[in-house]
Amino acid sequence: MLDNNFIFFQMRYVAAYLLAVLGGNATPDAAAIKKILSSVDVNVDDAALNKVLEQLAGKNLDEVIAAGKEKLAS
Amino acid sequence: MLDNNFIFFQMRYVAAYLLAVLGGNATPDAAAIKKILSSVDVNVDDAALNKVLEQLAGKNLDEVIAAGKEKLAS
Repeated sequence: MLDNNFIFFQMRYVAAYLLAVLGGNATPDAAAIKKILSSVDVNVDDAALNKVLEQLAGKNLDEVIAAGKEKLAS
Repeated sequence: MLDNNFIFFQMRYVAAYLLAVLGGNATPDAAAIKKILSSVDVNVDDAALNKVLEQLAGKNLDEVIAAGKEKLAS
């Protein structure tokens, strides 16, 4: 159950990142992601968020979606 | 260019829907999607949003992601 929660947490960050890119911000930072996540009342773990941001930096949309699917499947 | 913009618009709605579900709202409505999209300063076309919501209603996370990928690829 803890593992599932962790995966969902990471997936939220990926979804927020995706939305930020679709919203026109090609390189969203932690502040942009937090603003989006606050709209769904999700608490942010800074260390986990920064790790996700590192993994997604420079990826295109299709790669971000693929990364999200991997998080769900792992 | 107009077509691409339309696809990106729909993709934003799908991404916001996905984020709402990940945030714990199993059946997000138009108001929930608008709240998320306002965090990325995206204007909402009600007719287009409602069409996307109809298409996503009752789908699980994997199906929502697949629908998003189709929007990008079409």
